[in-house]
Amino acid sequence: MADALKVGIAGLGTVGASLVRIITTRANELAVTCGRAIEVSAVSARDRSRDRGVDLSGATWFDSPEEMAASADIDVFVELVGGAEGAADRSVRAALTRGLHVVTANKALLARHGVELATIAEEKGVLLNFEAAVAGGIPVIKALRESLTGNKVARIYGIMNGTCNYILTRMEKEGLSFADCLKEAQRLGYAEADPTFDIEGNDTAHKLAILTTLAFGTQIAADEIYLEGIGNISIEDIEAAADLGYRIKLLGVAQRTESGIEQRVHPTMVPRDTVIAQVDGVTNAVAIESDILGELLMVGPGAGGDATASAVLGDIADIAKSRPGAQRVPVLGTPAAALAPYQRARMRSHEGGYFIRLTVADRTGVFASVATRMAENNISLESIVQRASPNGAAGGSKTIILVTHATTEESVRKAVAGIKAEDYLVGEPQVIRIERPKAF
Amino acid sequence: MADALKVGIAGLGTVGASLVRIITTRANELAVTCGRAIEVSAVSARDRSRDRGVDLSGATWFDSPEEMAASADIDVFVELVGGAEGAADRSVRAALTRGLHVVTANKALLARHGVELATIAEEKGVLLNFEAAVAGGIPVIKALRESLTGNKVARIYGIMNGTCNYILTRMEKEGLSFADCLKEAQRLGYAEADPTFDIEGNDTAHKLAILTTLAFGTQIAADEIYLEGIGNISIEDIEAAADLGYRIKLLGVAQRTESGIEQRVHPTMVPRDTVIAQVDGVTNAVAIESDILGELLMVGPGAGGDATASAVLGDIADIAKSRPGAQRVPVLGTPAAALAPYQRARMRSHEGGYFIRLTVADRTGVFASVATRMAENNISLESIVQRASPNGAAGGSKTIILVTHATTEESVRKAVAGIKAEDYLVGEPQVIRIERPKAF
Repeated sequence: MADALKVGIAGLGTVGASLVRIITTRANELAVTCGRAIEVSAVSARDRSRDRGVDLSGATWFDSPEEMAASADIDVFVELVGGAEGAADRSVRAALTRGLHVVTANKALLARHGVELATIAEEKGVLLNFEAAVAGGIPVIKALRESLTGNKVARIYGIMNGTCNYILTRMEKEGLSFADCLKEAQRLGYAEADPTFDIEGNDTAHKLAILTTLAFGTQIAADEIYLEGIGNISIEDIEAAADLGYRIKLLGVAQRTESGIEQRVHPTMVPRDTVIAQVDGVTNAVAIESDILGELLMVGPGAGGDATASAVLGDIADIAKSRPGAQRVPVLGTPAAALAPYQRARMRSHEGGYFIRLTVADRTGVFASVATRMAENNISLESIVQRASPNGAAGGSKTIILVTHATTEESVRKAVAGIKAEDYLVGEPQVIRIERPKAF
Repeated sequence: MADALKVGIAGLGTVGASLVRIITTRANELAVTCGRAIEVSAVSARDRSRDRGVDLSGATWFDSPEEMAASADIDVFVELVGGAEGAADRSVRAALTRGLHVVTANKALLARHGVELATIAEEKGVLLNFEAAVAGGIPVIKALRESLTGNKVARIYGIMNGTCNYILTRMEKEGLSFADCLKEAQRLGYAEADPTFDIEGNDTAHKLAILTTLAFGTQIAADEIYLEGIGNISIEDIEAAADLGYRIKLLGVAQRTESGIEQRVHPTMVPRDTVIAQVDGVTNAVAIESDILGELLMVGPGAGGDATASAVLGDIADIAKSRPGAQRVPVLGTPAAALAPYQRARMRSHEGGYFIRLTVADRTGVFASVATRMAENNISLESIVQRASPNGAAGGSKTIILVTHATTEESVRKAVAGIKAEDYLVGEPQVIRIERPKAF
């Protein structure tokens, strides 16, 4: 049997502690499967005295990740510190530069510095694995980086934030408001005390930026993403969607178009009888549409200490099973030097169906005016529903709900601007994009 | 750049021709991604003169797979001949013994000889990859063999036969009979002229046997699978299932139990609001429940020339990207020499819910008798429905539908035997097992 693979783990929070426990308790099975033992040889965390319920007696303690990366006697540096800058960034660079393999779960780091880090890893001939960085336990990185080799991806989309999906699911199932569901998510530990980063779509955007690069072979462009959060989604939207045969999900979508790559994160209506529409609660899902394989959908836990640790362990095991020396698996699917510049598609050119909900004054001619604004912009309608306002409180107002056939963002914006210029609108119009899975 | 990887392809049917076309048309992209070119250096098929629409001028022609395996100047032998014995078996053995890597899409070969072939591959230090053998384009082999390293699998189950899922979906959506849907499937090319192998569950069983070994580290036991096909499923069953909130799917299920590993293929009721229940038509799906990762579900095309070729290409690319020399990825997840003997769980000990549909004489006391037989066998009922027979043709008969809480196969068999011993039963009772996904 080959020498043991020596692992150094920086960061001993929930994921790190779970990882140490698994490597320790499954030592025999791992040695058989990988053809060599895996040992936790070094660790680093802020508080040395804290009891994490795991045996760290065999590991050398380092006070900082950077110190461990620079001088520990290890083969693999596992970064579970978090954050795009600071210790995580410095220690990963140091480890790669020293010729260590690196495994990380850090989506922010990759979204920010992924191409630079991949360049160093490829120059040094080491692996930089990051399965846990996107959609937790779902092996979407491996699917894109390995299984889909030779395919051209047309679109990749997914539910990649458990907090948002939990809130939207609860709103639908229980008829509760966004605010109430957010509070419940916080109570259950599914949402942070400051939930902004999740709710406004930034977390999904980081993950999407990484997937875009793997799917389309373009440089990471995390700042070039159209972003809309779910804070604006009301129970009326969810009920209207249900009536029309749709569910609302926060999707991250990246798509090849004639003018470039679209990257967008926004509340999305998906047809209720599709598989992804059935993905509820904190569960994540990622779909990939490619030209040879067709459509692939993967559903699983997007977060949680154990699920994340499982993905990290899979990455470590891949290194344990591989031959020492130069590796040929490009970190980002395409060798870093061969990544194409990212060309952003104009959001105004986005094509698709739209759901538009308007609260309007209840008087003659309004319906005709709305229909005229649509027609003027060449928007054809799949359905149009007029109903009394949900709670009569708006006194003399009514609701008009439109679902369009495929049109462009530009047309919809113009039509909505036209309606806003009229005097019958009560409050802001709601506009939600529709996304249709291709095969299922 | 390293030397080109020379591939020899045995079998130029739909999958083989698609594979040659992709390797040829995507040559540049593959060379960049893999760090070396991939070349089709040798081919073998029955009919040399047939026009397959692909350029084979650069490849040496061999009249038999065995000849190609024995003497072609190649690095990888791709077996797309099919069949558990004969040319496929002989050529794969010859190629492995000669020290060539092998890629195959042949589930029958692996279900029959997988452990022997893995043993040869591991002795020779070459890779034997077979992603396309189970669930076509869905990367379930990679997930089990690589991503889930360190996990203990509790259950794996899936929709792995597109023909059966197409027929069951059509029966439900259109209200057509099994026979009508089978004819339509044959007309559309989704079912063979002789559909026995698909319909009776043998195809699913081959795939399940391979997954069982990867999931549980036991020797392949393709002949130890409990088997029930879908020929017995009527439109009444599908409608009753729908009324009760279930859909009927042909599932292959492998599960760890106290007495051993259950392997079973049978029509199964799954709750309608689960993700897998939404998988319709020829689409496949595989779910894996493991102790660290949790639940993972993958959905995608289970067949088709391009989807299968994509999986084969992914396997070839893994070889192209790996270092030459001895490999450490065990062919069947666990090294062949370390596979445990397969211990079959008794089907009578199977635990789960059951759907039981009885057609009975419409007279006083029958309902009470049925309920008594259940109670005598400690079967508690989730629901019990009595209704007029669907078409009155049975004259004076009625239908009783029971859904049980978790019980054992033995209890259900005893209860049904007790009912059959009474004089009120009209026709055979229908018994369908219920499977509940754990997380979604």
